[in-house]
Order: sequence, then structure tokens, then C-alpha cells
Amino acid sequence: MLKVGLLGAGRIGQVHAVNIANNSRSTLVAVSDVFEDAAKKLADQYGAEARTSDAILKDPEIDAVLIATSTDTHSDLIEAATAAGKAVLCEKPVDLSLERAQACLEKVSKTGRPVMIGFNRRFDPNFAALKSASLAGEIGKSELLSVTSFDPAPPPVSYIKVSGGLFRDMMIHDFDMANFLMGERPVTVRAVGSSIVDPEIGAAGDVDTAVVTLTYADGRIAVIKNSRRAVYGYDQRVELLGAEGLLQANNMLENTVVKSTTAGVASAKPTYFFLERYMPAYAAEWEAFVAALLDGSELPVTLEDGIAALAMAEAATQSAQSGAAVALDA
Amino acid sequence: MLKVGLLGAGRIGQVHAVNIANNSRSTLVAVSDVFEDAAKKLADQYGAEARTSDAILKDPEIDAVLIATSTDTHSDLIEAATAAGKAVLCEKPVDLSLERAQACLEKVSKTGRPVMIGFNRRFDPNFAALKSASLAGEIGKSELLSVTSFDPAPPPVSYIKVSGGLFRDMMIHDFDMANFLMGERPVTVRAVGSSIVDPEIGAAGDVDTAVVTLTYADGRIAVIKNSRRAVYGYDQRVELLGAEGLLQANNMLENTVVKSTTAGVASAKPTYFFLERYMPAYAAEWEAFVAALLDGSELPVTLEDGIAALAMAEAATQSAQSGAAVALDA
Amino acid sequence: MLKVGLLGAGRIGQVHAVNIANNSRSTLVAVSDVFEDAAKKLADQYGAEARTSDAILKDPEIDAVLIATSTDTHSDLIEAATAAGKAVLCEKPVDLSLERAQACLEKVSKTGRPVMIGFNRRFDPNFAALKSASLAGEIGKSELLSVTSFDPAPPPVSYIKVSGGLFRDMMIHDFDMANFLMGERPVTVRAVGSSIVDPEIGAAGDVDTAVVTLTYADGRIAVIKNSRRAVYGYDQRVELLGAEGLLQANNMLENTVVKSTTAGVASAKPTYFFLERYMPAYAAEWEAFVAALLDGSELPVTLEDGIAALAMAEAATQSAQSGAAVALDA
Amino acid sequence: MLKVGLLGAGRIGQVHAVNIANNSRSTLVAVSDVFEDAAKKLADQYGAEARTSDAILKDPEIDAVLIATSTDTHSDLIEAATAAGKAVLCEKPVDLSLERAQACLEKVSKTGRPVMIGFNRRFDPNFAALKSASLAGEIGKSELLSVTSFDPAPPPVSYIKVSGGLFRDMMIHDFDMANFLMGERPVTVRAVGSSIVDPEIGAAGDVDTAVVTLTYADGRIAVIKNSRRAVYGYDQRVELLGAEGLLQANNMLENTVVKSTTAGVASAKPTYFFLERYMPAYAAEWEAFVAALLDGSELPVTLEDGIAALAMAEAATQSAQSGAAVALDA
Repeated sequence: MLKVGLLGAGRIGQVHAVNIANNSRSTLVAVSDVFEDAAKKLADQYGAEARTSDAILKDPEIDAVLIATSTDTHSDLIEAATAAGKAVLCEKPVDLSLERAQACLEKVSKTGRPVMIGFNRRFDPNFAALKSASLAGEIGKSELLSVTSFDPAPPPVSYIKVSGGLFRDMMIHDFDMANFLMGERPVTVRAVGSSIVDPEIGAAGDVDTAVVTLTYADGRIAVIKNSRRAVYGYDQRVELLGAEGLLQANNMLENTVVKSTTAGVASAKPTYFFLERYMPAYAAEWEAFVAALLDGSELPVTLEDGIAALAMAEAATQSAQSGAAVALDA
Repeated sequence: MLKVGLLGAGRIGQVHAVNIANNSRSTLVAVSDVFEDAAKKLADQYGAEARTSDAILKDPEIDAVLIATSTDTHSDLIEAATAAGKAVLCEKPVDLSLERAQACLEKVSKTGRPVMIGFNRRFDPNFAALKSASLAGEIGKSELLSVTSFDPAPPPVSYIKVSGGLFRDMMIHDFDMANFLMGERPVTVRAVGSSIVDPEIGAAGDVDTAVVTLTYADGRIAVIKNSRRAVYGYDQRVELLGAEGLLQANNMLENTVVKSTTAGVASAKPTYFFLERYMPAYAAEWEAFVAALLDGSELPVTLEDGIAALAMAEAATQSAQSGAAVALDA
Repeated sequence: MLKVGLLGAGRIGQVHAVNIANNSRSTLVAVSDVFEDAAKKLADQYGAEARTSDAILKDPEIDAVLIATSTDTHSDLIEAATAAGKAVLCEKPVDLSLERAQACLEKVSKTGRPVMIGFNRRFDPNFAALKSASLAGEIGKSELLSVTSFDPAPPPVSYIKVSGGLFRDMMIHDFDMANFLMGERPVTVRAVGSSIVDPEIGAAGDVDTAVVTLTYADGRIAVIKNSRRAVYGYDQRVELLGAEGLLQANNMLENTVVKSTTAGVASAKPTYFFLERYMPAYAAEWEAFVAALLDGSELPVTLEDGIAALAMAEAATQSAQSGAAVALDA
Repeated sequence: MLKVGLLGAGRIGQVHAVNIANNSRSTLVAVSDVFEDAAKKLADQYGAEARTSDAILKDPEIDAVLIATSTDTHSDLIEAATAAGKAVLCEKPVDLSLERAQACLEKVSKTGRPVMIGFNRRFDPNFAALKSASLAGEIGKSELLSVTSFDPAPPPVSYIKVSGGLFRDMMIHDFDMANFLMGERPVTVRAVGSSIVDPEIGAAGDVDTAVVTLTYADGRIAVIKNSRRAVYGYDQRVELLGAEGLLQANNMLENTVVKSTTAGVASAKPTYFFLERYMPAYAAEWEAFVAALLDGSELPVTLEDGIAALAMAEAATQSAQSGAAVALDA
């Protein structure tokens, strides 16, 4: 039984709490949050204790921590937790600064403790099934990947300003998806972006619509499309063309009802946002983390994976500004 | 907080235990089962106690019981539980004998205790959305209902022999679906059935493939198709034609992946069976039961509903044997 | 080169004229119609002559006639044409009277001339592909057939009065579809029908909504649903459940555009009516008729097929009135 | 009645011949081809004459010519035909050389004769419906266009060598589609390409897989994906994201049959290649050309449109080689 401390009792922390509590091999021992009340309420619900992060890290009974705090604390908490001997599952991104993340990796390496980054989409049943089919050779050698990833609505501009920008905040998930599905990292990044959804996002120095093209050493190509606004819901799709076929992972819909009238044929919309779409993915992610720790299986997403995606985000940010392709380090 | 005793720790009892425990307004206090070990294991998992059914019914602290025992015990347990002052959610069917079920209703009525029958499909998000759309007038007056309900594989013949027959055991769900979606009960039942899936089912006196036609006082028509075998999975669909359109509720698929190769375009299969398909329905069913008890809202499925479906099953059994239409009592 | 006379220059005659003219092995020689102007206009368009029906039948140069006149003339024209040595493709139904149709068959038999009945749906690419898959054993032995066949809007009541009723006029196509897909004729017919679309249809002694259940000697079952009104368009679908799977033929849509907005996800409607849906079927039907005549292949639909469907329509009409099942002659 | 000469009796010339002959306002007068027999056979089929191209251009009775000859003759024939006073519908591309095409435009302008370029996809019912919906404001202001365009199989390398390369030969259709759907021309072109389908294509100096990103003056973005090989068939899809929704035009399928077995759920493949997919588009294209000439409506695709697409192809070819973005002239 894995004893777990949860750092962060916000929206995403609450999602993780359910999975920690429902998993038959893990138990939620303690919860911390900058808002003590939030920590207490969440802890109460699952028979856990509200504590400070420090107290959690110092508790020798706790095996693992899940870091669901604000991005600017991730690197520090990863370092502190691994130094304290804990296994870590940390929400993405590792950090907004590639340099800082790399320093974090260096420190963590010395501890030998396992750190997994929460790229939840790898655990989505649809993307996971697509990956399995690709690995099983069902479409032969993959050639051209296409990732569509649109949010239902842009966040407040106040959030945009501290987000690190679309490429680090939003497309980072898609960079990891490309790494996951292509099975290797690209050699060049080309990005275009603009702020046509909301001019205030542009005024804040960010883009809200972007297309990134990735090329691979063997000639394969990937393209990622992002928009901060798809009014019909969270649009999360992937297409992989291979020598022997095409794999597509489509959206989950709210229900399967179809209505045919004189106005046309209408179906349900995609599930609204990441909590609705990726709830099963969060459970599977936690299951995979527990399995890696208790069964000694390999961590399915590593700190290195988190840094690789961050490096791609940084390259894309540069390319969108300069207009030139940016080469990635091997 | 509703304190709940669970009678029956088998497969379906375990599904209910999760929902009782996860619901923020109910708590699982005790579990009983003819196999004590099964009761104990399930109780342990949720911090409840294993007890006898008698002990559960006698405990004044327990507000409600969920009956998930074998069909032949349903009527007796409903009577005993309501006599002991408990609210009841009982798995379908009330009984295999219409007469016995009617006697049960009479006894229950005298206690005034609420009894809900577990027609879980009413709570399936797809069928519920179809019903809402119909109630909202989105297709005008309904005219012709079609229910497709196929199991992935027939049960063992040993089960068939004690099941009460396809109409009472399997199609009873679809009779309730017709009552749910048409909003009233039919006036005549016509049934045809045969055993073409497995001749042993025929030898046991039952059918494995059947079509029932229902007519309504105002001229509306419903048709229900059942097969004990759809090798591709649990096929659960509904279509409702109305004066202003058509509503269809289609199957849930295992995932959204589509593969296109020289062999064609392939999608995932429907979710395999009722546990996969109706898991969200069981949670919503429990939520509705808790809400009815704690908020005083109306019970969404009553004991009378259970008896109405049973009466239709009995009529269909007769019609399939006689070849004639059977009129239902008003 | 097959030399063809077309009897009837109305809407359906015009469809046939295109196919006769475009087929590389047939040529349109003459057209007749009770409205001479209509015959002349259609004839001119394809370099043919307008003549009387008599003149067409007497012309020894003409090999085949296509009968697209009003239903009450079909039997007489089939007899006259075959007596004159012509091959015949006649629009369905053979006649509204089963007795008259049988007398026609007797006369035709003596001439030895080929007569094909225009059950165009057998040639629809979707239904034909379903039939091929079934014949190829792709779903094993077929068990349960379901035919959905809804018109977009009811015809005028004046038409209803002379139509022979829904079973003879509309469902006759679906009876033939059942015969086509099940590969044999049923042994019993059970029908229910009502007039809920338009009470004037009921006042005229007909129904506008009907469900027919067919049983087969080996226990197989088929169910046919008809409505005179599906406001969203012509709804023409078939489902065949077999021991090893399910085959479905779905509607053709007007186009493949899908629109996702806050109001939901909307697709195009089914093609509006039989001319839109079955245009390719009419061309394939003519191609099959020409091939049967010129290559000596078997006629894909015979006069006997036309009579078999008519007998089922008569049985259904009786069953809907009496409430009892009607047995069909072997 | 428009009197038409057809230059070129090859595969695509034959498609046009059908449409010219079937259109009630045009008639096929003469056909030319470098292979006289081919011209004669096609002419015979429609009661036309086989002539030389010269003879066709000199015939004062002929109003319009359709140029369906090899690409290297297009510019010369457009110039000769317009000089001879003919209206012209010419297959794409205008020329493989942008310079030559521009010179052609200059000459044509002086004649004042109408020249339409055969970008048939604009007339595909699906893309046309998407465009109409966009123009009608159904998704608000468009922001991000995505064009997927895969051929079923690469052409022979011998063809590749004279084709002008993927961007001029294949993606030129998609450049025009972008111009059609975005309603204006882009300001920059970024291209990546590689030869991973067939290394011989790379050895011939061309690519077989490519992604092009287009940016527009107002910040909008378009992305085009091409592959010479999609083994499952011709993959021709478009997605347009707007401020108020998403429009998608999906593939046409060979039929609507769906088969569900233990192996999964299988549908028909996309129609195989451009002749199957775009047959209705060719008919609509011809109809539009005839309407423009006879009714004085505007030409829906102009010679300028052909040149604009060619300029984009040239820019993409450069960008794929240099790795840099290429700006387009305003």
C-alpha cells in the first residue's frame, strides 16, 4: 500500500485525491495547500490529514508525493521531495524555464528517486489505443502526425501573463504527445502564431492560435495546431498516417444521442474541457505511477520527458518570433 | 447522510458498493451475503461491517437497503425491509411471478415506505438525454419507438432454466424502457420468438431471439428486438420517431480510434456488456435514489413500474406461445 | 444494342430514359404517354420518337419495353408486351390485385418472354453490398432482419385512396427487400398499423405508420417499420444480425459537412426522397436488365418476385385488420 | 446552346465529354487528340467529329474549347484559343513555369476572352457546402484552415520527373482550395517536405510527403498536408475553425454499410481516387462554366486564380529547399 501526500488541493489536486483514494494499492495520508481550509476539506473527505508541505515531506511514513501546486513551485518541490526520499508525480510543466528544469533534473538524478511528469494525455484511452495500434505495426511505419488541440475558451489575460505563453503552457502537452506517438524527438521546430481570438492576448505578448511543424531525422513530419478557442468544446484529436494506413483518435462526445429534424442531423458536443475528457486518463495515470513504484515497472513518463517538451516549447517560442526554423539539440 | 445496508455482495452488489461509498450523501454501513467471506471482503474495502441480512434489517441506524440478492429472494426481502421501516432500492425483477409481485406491492403499500426498482437503463446518460429531448418536444409527438437490445453472448442453459425466460429476464428491461420513453403503458402485446442462437435454449423451453410489438391507446407503436447473442458486444440502442423528427441513442464504443487500411475503415466495438456500458447509469441511479430520499423528490422508478414491466413480460410469453395478440389490463 | 420503347414519360419514366440513353448497350427508340406532349418532349431530348403504346408494341424492331405507366395499366401492358414478343421491365407493383397479378403471370409464362419487376432497391449500392457481405458469410447465418423505411412526407389523400394502401403501395418494397436479403419467403405475417401521422389517411381507410413481423420456417425473424412521414428526409436503412455479426446499411447524406458550434454538432440530412437516394440504383437496375437480356444472365428480379411481395402485402393488410397472424402459402 | 470543342481525349477528356454531352445547354461538336483513334472513338460516342486542334480552333461555329491535353501545351493552347475568339476551360495547372503563365495571362487579357481554370474541387458538393456555410457566417470569422489531401498511391517516378514536383503538381489544388476558402491570398509560405514514401521520388529530386503553413495579413493561418500514399484511398478533407465553430468536410465513402464482428466495426473505404470522388464536381464545374458564358454570371475560377496557386507552389518549393519562410507578392 503506497502512502501518499498530496501537495495542492485545488481543482486538479481534487481530481488526483479521488484517484489516490479509489486505487486499491494507494492511500491518501495527508494534503497540503496554501489555503489551509481547502487542504482540510479535501483531507476530511478521504480520512486524511491536512498538513504543511514541509511536514508531509518530512514524514518518513509517506512514500510518494503528488505535486499539484502552482507551476512556479514545481522545481523546488521536486528537488525537496526527492531529497527527502519521496517518489514524485508532478503536474506539468516542470518549470517555465528550461534552464531551471535542467538544474532540477541534475539534482534529482543524484537522489535516484523516481519522478514522473503528469502528461495525462498519454493515458487517455483513445490516444493510448492509437499508440498501441501504431506500436503493433497496424499502419506500418509512421510518416505524418497531426495533432489538433483546441481549448473551449481562452483563460483570463491575467493568467496568460504568467503562463509562460501558449507554447509552454498549452502546446507543451502536444509536444509530449508528438514525442509519445513518434517515439523520438524531432530535429527542427517551425512555428507560426498569432492572436486572432483575443487581441488582448496579443497585447500581453502571447499568441492564441498557432501551428508548429516538426521534422524528424528520418524525414517524418508532425504538425500541431492549437487554438485557445473552440466554442463547441475541448477538441482533442490525433491522426497518424503510416505506410499501411491511417489511425485517428477522435473526440469523446457528451452522449450518443443523434437528433434528425428538418434543421439537420445533430449530435452531442465533445466533452467540455480537460476535466470531463481526461478523467479516465488521470485515473490511469495514477494507476501507472503506482504500478511503476510497487511492481518495479518502468516509469511511463520521466522528468526527461518533461524537459524535452519544454525544450520544444522554447524552440517554438523562438521560431514564432524569428520566423526561422530552430534546430533542437540531439 | 444516508446509512445503507447492502444485501448481496456478488458482481452487481460490488458495483453498488462503489456508488454508495463514493456518493457524498450516503455511507455503506453493512454488507450481507450468503457467502460470508464475500460479504466480509466487500465490507472491509469500504470500512463497513459484514452482517446477516436479518441483522441489517433490524439495525435502527440503517436508513435504506439495497437488495442485490438472487431474484427468488426479492419479494420477501422487499417486504421484510419495508416492514422494518427501511427505504429500498431493489434490483430488477421484483419477482418472476406477477401474482407474487402484486402481493408484495400490497404489503409494501401498507408500510408507506419508498421502494425503487433498479431499472438502471433509465439512468444511462444516452437514454436519459433522449428522454429529455423527447419531453422537451424536440421531435414533436412521438409515434414509433424501436428498441434494440442484444446481449453479447447467451448465459449458460442452467441459468436460462431458472431465469423465467427471455421476456421476464432480459426483455423486461426493454419493456420498462418503452414505458419510460412512451410515458404510458401499451394496450396490446404481440410477440414472436425462436431459439436459433442455441437449440439447447429451445430445448429448455425458452427463446433466444424475439420481437415484440406494442400498441398504444392513441395509435402509437413500439417494437422491441432481443437477441441473446451479438458477438460484437452489448448492443443497446433506441430510436424514437416523432412528428417533427427522429431521436436515436447509439452504443458507447470502447474508444474513439478509427483505423483506415486497405482492409477498410475500422472502429472500436461497443462496450462489452452491461457492467461496461451502464457503470455511469448505476452511479446516477444511486444518486437519484439518495436524492429522492433526502430531498423528498419523487422516486424515479417505482415498485409499480417493476410490476408493469413484469405484466408485459407475462403477456409477451403468452403471445409468443399462442401466436395471438394479448391485451393488457388498463 | 438493345432497342427500347418507354411506356410512360412521367417522373419515373424520365429517370429511366436517362439510363436507357446513357447505357452503351441500349438505345431509346420510342416513348409513349397519355400526354402526347410529355412523350414528345422526352423523346426529342434523346433523339427518339413519340408514338402510341400500341405502335411501340407492334414495332418488330423494338426488343424491350420499360413500363412506367400508372399501376392500373401494368398487368395489361405486361401481357400485351410479352404477347408481342417484347422483354419487359415493369415498375412495381405488378397490380394491386393479387389475383389479377397471378393471372398475368400465367399468361406471361406461356409466352416465355422475360419480365423483370422494378424493385430498384435491390440495386442500391448499399443494400447490394450488404447482401453480398451476407452471401459471402461475413456475419454467419442470418437470424434477425430489421428494415426501416420512412417516406419524408405523406402523399395527398387522393393518392392514398387509389394506392391500394400502405402495405401494397409502400411496404411492398420492404417485403421484397426482406425476400432479397433473407433469400426465402416467410411463413407468417403479423401486422399492426395506425394513422397517427394524418387522421385523414385513417378516414380514407388506410394506415400511415405500421410494423410488420415476419417469421421464417427455420425460426428466423424479420421486422419492417414504415412511416409515411420522417420530416428529416427519406429514411432507408437495413440491419441484419447474424451468428457472427451485424450488417447495417445506413442512409446516404446530402454531403459530408459537419458543423460544430455551441448549439451542437450538425451534419447533413439524408438525401430527400427516392429520386435522390436511388438514382444510382435505377442505373444499376437497367444495367442488370440489359445484361440479363444480352448476356443471358439470370433476371435478378422476376414477375414471381413481384407477386410474392404482393401476397405479403395482402397478408399484412388482413393481419392489420384482424389482429391475427396470417400464414402464407408455401 | 454552347458548341464545344474538346482538346484531349484521354482519361480526363472522357470525363469532360460526358458532362458536355449531358448538359442541356452544351453540345460536343469536335474532339482532338494526338492519338487520332482516341479522338475518333470519343467523338463517335457522342455524335461529334474527330478533328485536329487547329481545325477546332479555326471553326467559327465553335464557341468554347475545353483543354484537357498535357500540361506543357496548356499555355500555348490557351493563347491560341483565346486569340481565335474561343472561351476556354483549361485543366490545371496553367503551366509549370510561373513566368510563362504570367505571359499567357498578359496575352489573354488583350483578347478579353473568358478563361476558366479547372480547379474541380471548388465544385465538390462537400467543399462547396463548407464554403457556403462559411460565407453565410455560420462559424463567424474564420481563423485556422486545415487541408488534408492524400493520394492513394504515388504515380510512377517517370511521371514525377516531368510533373514539376509535388507542390506544383499535387498541392496546387490545395493552394487553390486555401484561396477559395480563405477568400484571399496568404502573405507567407513555409514548407517542409521529405521523400519517405518512396526513396526513388527523393532521388528524382521531389518530395512525397509535405506540410505547408500559410499566414495571412490579418493573422489567420492555414496548414496543408500532402502525402502521395494513403493506402486506404483518396483522403480529401478540410477543416475550418472560426470564432463561432468548426466546419469539416469529410471523405465520401464507397457505401454506407457497417459491419460489426468480433474483429471490430468496419465501414467502407473512401472513394478510391479523383475520378470516383470528384465525378459530381466535374459536372458542376462544367455547369458553372456554361452558366458563366450563357447567363453572363461571373467566372467562378479565373486564369488569375490559376496563377496565384502556381505562385504559391513556387514559393513552397523554394521554402522546402531553403528552410526559410517565403513572402508572397501582394
